Amino acid sequence: MSATALSHEAPATALTNLFAHVRRLSLALAEPLSDADATVQSMDDASPAKWHLAHTSWFFETFVLRDHVAGYEAFDPDFHFLFNSYYEAEGARHARNHRGLLTRPSLDHIRAYRAHVDAAMLEAMPTLSNDALALVELGLNHEQQHQELLLTDILHLFAQNPLFPAIWPAAPMPAVEPRPVEWIEGPVGQVEIGHGGDRFAFDCEGPRHAVLLTPYALASRPVTNGEWAAFIADGGYAQSRHWLADGWAWVQANGIDAPLYWRKDEDGHWQQFGLDGLRSVDPSAPVCHISLYEADAYAAWAGARLPTEAEWEAIAASHDPLGGNQLDAAGPVRPRADAADALFGNVWQWTGSAYRPYPGFKPAEGAVGEYNGKFMSGRFVLRGSSCATPRGSVRPSYRNFFYPHQRWQFTGLRLARDL
Amino acid sequence: MSATALSHEAPATALTNLFAHVRRLSLALAEPLSDADATVQSMDDASPAKWHLAHTSWFFETFVLRDHVAGYEAFDPDFHFLFNSYYEAEGARHARNHRGLLTRPSLDHIRAYRAHVDAAMLEAMPTLSNDALALVELGLNHEQQHQELLLTDILHLFAQNPLFPAIWPAAPMPAVEPRPVEWIEGPVGQVEIGHGGDRFAFDCEGPRHAVLLTPYALASRPVTNGEWAAFIADGGYAQSRHWLADGWAWVQANGIDAPLYWRKDEDGHWQQFGLDGLRSVDPSAPVCHISLYEADAYAAWAGARLPTEAEWEAIAASHDPLGGNQLDAAGPVRPRADAADALFGNVWQWTGSAYRPYPGFKPAEGAVGEYNGKFMSGRFVLRGSSCATPRGSVRPSYRNFFYPHQRWQFTGLRLARDL
Amino acid sequence: MSATALSHEAPATALTNLFAHVRRLSLALAEPLSDADATVQSMDDASPAKWHLAHTSWFFETFVLRDHVAGYEAFDPDFHFLFNSYYEAEGARHARNHRGLLTRPSLDHIRAYRAHVDAAMLEAMPTLSNDALALVELGLNHEQQHQELLLTDILHLFAQNPLFPAIWPAAPMPAVEPRPVEWIEGPVGQVEIGHGGDRFAFDCEGPRHAVLLTPYALASRPVTNGEWAAFIADGGYAQSRHWLADGWAWVQANGIDAPLYWRKDEDGHWQQFGLDGLRSVDPSAPVCHISLYEADAYAAWAGARLPTEAEWEAIAASHDPLGGNQLDAAGPVRPRADAADALFGNVWQWTGSAYRPYPGFKPAEGAVGEYNGKFMSGRFVLRGSSCATPRGSVRPSYRNFFYPHQRWQFTGLRLARDL
Amino acid sequence: MSATALSHEAPATALTNLFAHVRRLSLALAEPLSDADATVQSMDDASPAKWHLAHTSWFFETFVLRDHVAGYEAFDPDFHFLFNSYYEAEGARHARNHRGLLTRPSLDHIRAYRAHVDAAMLEAMPTLSNDALALVELGLNHEQQHQELLLTDILHLFAQNPLFPAIWPAAPMPAVEPRPVEWIEGPVGQVEIGHGGDRFAFDCEGPRHAVLLTPYALASRPVTNGEWAAFIADGGYAQSRHWLADGWAWVQANGIDAPLYWRKDEDGHWQQFGLDGLRSVDPSAPVCHISLYEADAYAAWAGARLPTEAEWEAIAASHDPLGGNQLDAAGPVRPRADAADALFGNVWQWTGSAYRPYPGFKPAEGAVGEYNGKFMSGRFVLRGSSCATPRGSVRPSYRNFFYPHQRWQFTGLRLARDL
Repeated sequence: MSATALSHEAPATALTNLFAHVRRLSLALAEPLSDADATVQSMDDASPAKWHLAHTSWFFETFVLRDHVAGYEAFDPDFHFLFNSYYEAEGARHARNHRGLLTRPSLDHIRAYRAHVDAAMLEAMPTLSNDALALVELGLNHEQQHQELLLTDILHLFAQNPLFPAIWPAAPMPAVEPRPVEWIEGPVGQVEIGHGGDRFAFDCEGPRHAVLLTPYALASRPVTNGEWAAFIADGGYAQSRHWLADGWAWVQANGIDAPLYWRKDEDGHWQQFGLDGLRSVDPSAPVCHISLYEADAYAAWAGARLPTEAEWEAIAASHDPLGGNQLDAAGPVRPRADAADALFGNVWQWTGSAYRPYPGFKPAEGAVGEYNGKFMSGRFVLRGSSCATPRGSVRPSYRNFFYPHQRWQFTGLRLARDL
Repeated sequence: MSATALSHEAPATALTNLFAHVRRLSLALAEPLSDADATVQSMDDASPAKWHLAHTSWFFETFVLRDHVAGYEAFDPDFHFLFNSYYEAEGARHARNHRGLLTRPSLDHIRAYRAHVDAAMLEAMPTLSNDALALVELGLNHEQQHQELLLTDILHLFAQNPLFPAIWPAAPMPAVEPRPVEWIEGPVGQVEIGHGGDRFAFDCEGPRHAVLLTPYALASRPVTNGEWAAFIADGGYAQSRHWLADGWAWVQANGIDAPLYWRKDEDGHWQQFGLDGLRSVDPSAPVCHISLYEADAYAAWAGARLPTEAEWEAIAASHDPLGGNQLDAAGPVRPRADAADALFGNVWQWTGSAYRPYPGFKPAEGAVGEYNGKFMSGRFVLRGSSCATPRGSVRPSYRNFFYPHQRWQFTGLRLARDL
Repeated sequence: MSATALSHEAPATALTNLFAHVRRLSLALAEPLSDADATVQSMDDASPAKWHLAHTSWFFETFVLRDHVAGYEAFDPDFHFLFNSYYEAEGARHARNHRGLLTRPSLDHIRAYRAHVDAAMLEAMPTLSNDALALVELGLNHEQQHQELLLTDILHLFAQNPLFPAIWPAAPMPAVEPRPVEWIEGPVGQVEIGHGGDRFAFDCEGPRHAVLLTPYALASRPVTNGEWAAFIADGGYAQSRHWLADGWAWVQANGIDAPLYWRKDEDGHWQQFGLDGLRSVDPSAPVCHISLYEADAYAAWAGARLPTEAEWEAIAASHDPLGGNQLDAAGPVRPRADAADALFGNVWQWTGSAYRPYPGFKPAEGAVGEYNGKFMSGRFVLRGSSCATPRGSVRPSYRNFFYPHQRWQFTGLRLARDL
Repeated sequence: MSATALSHEAPATALTNLFAHVRRLSLALAEPLSDADATVQSMDDASPAKWHLAHTSWFFETFVLRDHVAGYEAFDPDFHFLFNSYYEAEGARHARNHRGLLTRPSLDHIRAYRAHVDAAMLEAMPTLSNDALALVELGLNHEQQHQELLLTDILHLFAQNPLFPAIWPAAPMPAVEPRPVEWIEGPVGQVEIGHGGDRFAFDCEGPRHAVLLTPYALASRPVTNGEWAAFIADGGYAQSRHWLADGWAWVQANGIDAPLYWRKDEDGHWQQFGLDGLRSVDPSAPVCHISLYEADAYAAWAGARLPTEAEWEAIAASHDPLGGNQLDAAGPVRPRADAADALFGNVWQWTGSAYRPYPGFKPAEGAVGEYNGKFMSGRFVLRGSSCATPRGSVRPSYRNFFYPHQRWQFTGLRLARDL
């Protein structure tokens, strides 16, 4: 995120309130977790909840308190090494795939670390420079990203447990008939996308620039579980013809035959594990936890295609992010059939766009310049937001990105077609 | 390749002459190889020379002779299984990474297979339908691609041999001082790229469409070995800051510290292995056998960037592909300093564009529809051509594509910058 | 363990007391552990402490309470699946390398499970048949084995933590000068080894049988850390000549250059991590945490050899197992210089004997027959006991066994030579 | 092999004749191979035929000509690096798993190398010292071992080819009814085994020493294919109960369900690939190409056990090695039903003995001292000989050894039981 992308209007008070709110939500999300729940790393792509809680604090401690607050005393000097994620400029760090071996410090100790950082931050914020405040805003957006990761990583961990523990009680889900798909036409010709203006955005969302769009339409709602079940029943996972070559190799090497967390019960009915435990698949809810490969194969099978990120954003710019089903508070998190119509929310939507820099993109200077640019190879862009995305952090220009085989995020798809 | 992309004007006679020429060149390239040279597979990405010679014949036998020539008798029914590459629609095939275990049939037997197919083709061509002739043209372009692969795969194999055998005698290389870089400005605004017209192109080169370009320039020549040596000397491979995250992980996991086939002699001077053996690195020749990761890191280090494929094509459209140093006949193949100014030729040039479909792209029907579309994830586009690209197959719209870590092709880079 | 190998004299009361003692010690060993400490699995060879506590209870619940106590109600039916280790006859079980993903049930819940099993056992024991009591005795010996594993697995886990946490406070170690090695001559000719008589032993310790011994001697004490440091300083890990071929390959593939848990401090002095934290290597204490490969290479370097298990047992039969430094109660556990003279204790001693059945060996019937026989390939026998072996379970005929590369147990060596 | 184990009586003339015979047989075995056949390495355990031909010549060139013949000029100095197998004392060598990448030097060039070495050897032999002659004898026994490996490695390579090429025409096999098994009782009490006397043996075959044997018997013939088919039909590969734990893990990880080279034809009949191509399994012939794990499981299933190597040798000492079906000349090689009664020959017989040193064993000094001792971990001993073992090299004390999972040698089993 570049300094210029920050909102200079944000009064320090508003930022202080936001700071308190965001920091509190992280703790609330981790509230149902035991020390062990918060410690274990279930795969290399995931991190322990404890690590998320600590690393987001490390961000403030390092880039704000250490660099901008005279006399700040680090909570524990070892934490600088333990809780750096990938900032090469910040020196050596604990190996990513060993994060789950840190049974000490305990979850309670990490909570104390957070309290220490919070106190120092709240004391310092009234006196911080605009540059430092910009880093606070960045840190809060960063923490919101980790809130979503914390939830998806815990979901992955609990899904490995044959007892299928639920982090929250099962939420009653209103039975909803999925509406028929309508096709939303997008603007054509030279269209501007990308972040502009003073509000916060990550560096990769800009510069704002023109793109050329040819006539197209997006589906009015994401693909549903029921539609996905038809894809499965039609042999979608059993024949190569609709798949990207890399995708088909991935299907065969990993024995993929359904979205992640789906399993058949003894009667052959699909069940789905979620943060509220194991439940029957809701045919009206958006399909979730699919890879780009699956999304692309489904679109080909359906005679459609994935939207480009520009197509998505061109339409989204006139929609309200508040319409989705995003994360508001700790509690059951699950894609909901009754929120499926919203362009934002419920599930991230794979696009057909590789994650590459916009014209004129330049990484920011310094360690925070590692924020996004260095990940611009091998990933695809996802747009929108999910039921696990903190509500305030949703915006049309947001570019999420993952490798095409990854699917432990709340990932789904919305079809597009040429007109 | 779609039928409509084929040149309908190509008179059958011209195509017959081209057929004879292309088929003869393949044999000439393999002339210096022993049966063993032509059999061994030195890595999963590479194929044995024998396999290239057989598979290109399988293409004509399957899609032309079997499907369009009544009464054609297959040379050997087993070959259908052995020499299919990746056409899922054509059924089971020999595992790619086991191609090097086929010591039988011998190289001589494969030559007999080629002679059988050639005789049947030359007899049939005067009577083939336009559809079938379009497949012949596709098959010849396909074979030209495999000619380049045959050379790069043999180079990789010979490079594993501690005796450093040369496939051809070392070619005398004129000593040339590299010209200073000039910057070629490209067209700006809405610019058309992609294949149009009647001449042959692969399906992925179209449809022709408009793109938006902002002011930019390309370097007048590729980066040279001498410039690359300066990058190495400046710690280019030793620090992470200019690297994509995936690239830095690749550097560290594989101990990368120079282009492929470079090695230091006992006096610390760089040497380079090529199809004409082991020689001192020529500082004026284009750097070659680098990955996208290396190209991108170099560009960042040099304060520049990689061009997009649209930028490259917009300038190339007014350049002459004949100006490069492409493959004309069997003989020493090596990037040459005296041909470095040509926009085409010498080395493939990595672009910053992910290999994705153009707007409106649709795969062709049938097995040949698997030609390009299914590879459109995970790869980056390269433009131009190399010293191993058959001369007639070079054109501005050609999209070559490889994974970002691959570098056994003749791959280099040309810098770009914003104006 | 075969039923006939059990001590029938053991009065039920003595067994009840032993039961209470052993079960209590397991809990005491786990006392300093947090829920997270007890949950994480640091490598495939290790198991979580929680799992050890649960699996040892599962053993009593399955083979005693379920099979011999009418009306017993399982604590939780899911535990049968979760906490089976490797008894194929008991059906499906949780994958060994996923044990560390079970953050639920919690450590406290496992303690409740233990209490449930203990209560049922203590109530049932007065009325159990001799067959069932034999299984109780087996279960207690089984639990004692897991007590040692619990300690070595926790040590391995804590060693992965860059903060070097100690499970217990550092124990003061008396400074002791190592005594010079003397050579103890063993009996020659036909000698009987193997378990005989009525006291408990595992099935693999018998049948008792004669072996032929030629003149030999054992060193009066194990090899010390100081002697090992001389081996290192002499290039012991740097040249192949003393190593078994498999051992040398293991050294090179894993970059081995010292015993496990040794590391050099900034001044180049060897430090050793243990259950009481990081300390200077004590040159007088027995070397520990070495593989069979290292032991064998050291012996060759020293001009000696490893003893056979028969040679070791022939001498041990006249020694007192109480002389060693074995586990008596929860508290600091570390090989001690002042106990190094004992034939038993301090460190397990690699022998040159492959772990194979004695003449006439037959596995017991039923699930407990899987106890030892099926592991009789690929492992070497270790003799003696270690500072982490429960004192009561030490006997001359005991055969410990591990793969030759494993070294996370308290493993050392004692030299032998021909006379 | 220690010098003292060599036969000093062997007159130089007899050794010269043997030299000519052995060297000629190697060439004859390779006669049907193409340059490609002789170059490819089908797995890490195997070596190219060309490599076997070269390495056996390297042995004479290095240990005899270089060290004992003044003025000898090496054929090519590079070969010292290329064709060392595992002699660490001889310095750097070409990586074992890259042997198959050496397409140059060609098979013909290796034949020229052999001719060069043969000429120098035949000229030198009349004047060699006894020490040097002992090395010649060692070299010939070494070459005989490689003759068997050459055949098993070629078999493995050809088995990867879906065309199932035969190296020799299918040999007519007399139909033979397997004789019922009788049980041969062995000697009991103190029995001497191991090599003694002046004739050649490898170092690991001695010293001669006494062992204690308890009453036992060996089956009069090896287990047959027909008996093995019954094991399969009874679910032998489908349930764990008869398997060693390592063996069961190997079965499951590799999907093992029959001996290597067995495959079911379309009618469900077992076929077997051999050096004479693909044929129906002969139920009367010895089962072949099984691992130690399979042999052990079969024996357990049959209510028997594997013999120890001492038991085998104690009986073999009174049998005639000429009775088997060993390699006499180039030509079809296959286990034969009509030779199954011989104690030697047909198939190697897995024993239950780990490959470890005999009491008093010491490796020889110098590079040849690496011959056997360093492999004494992880392997099991096989006794007897196979249809691919050169006839003159068969003797009762011979200890063959392989890892328990390996089965590309001609390996079978003979049952034993306690009396």
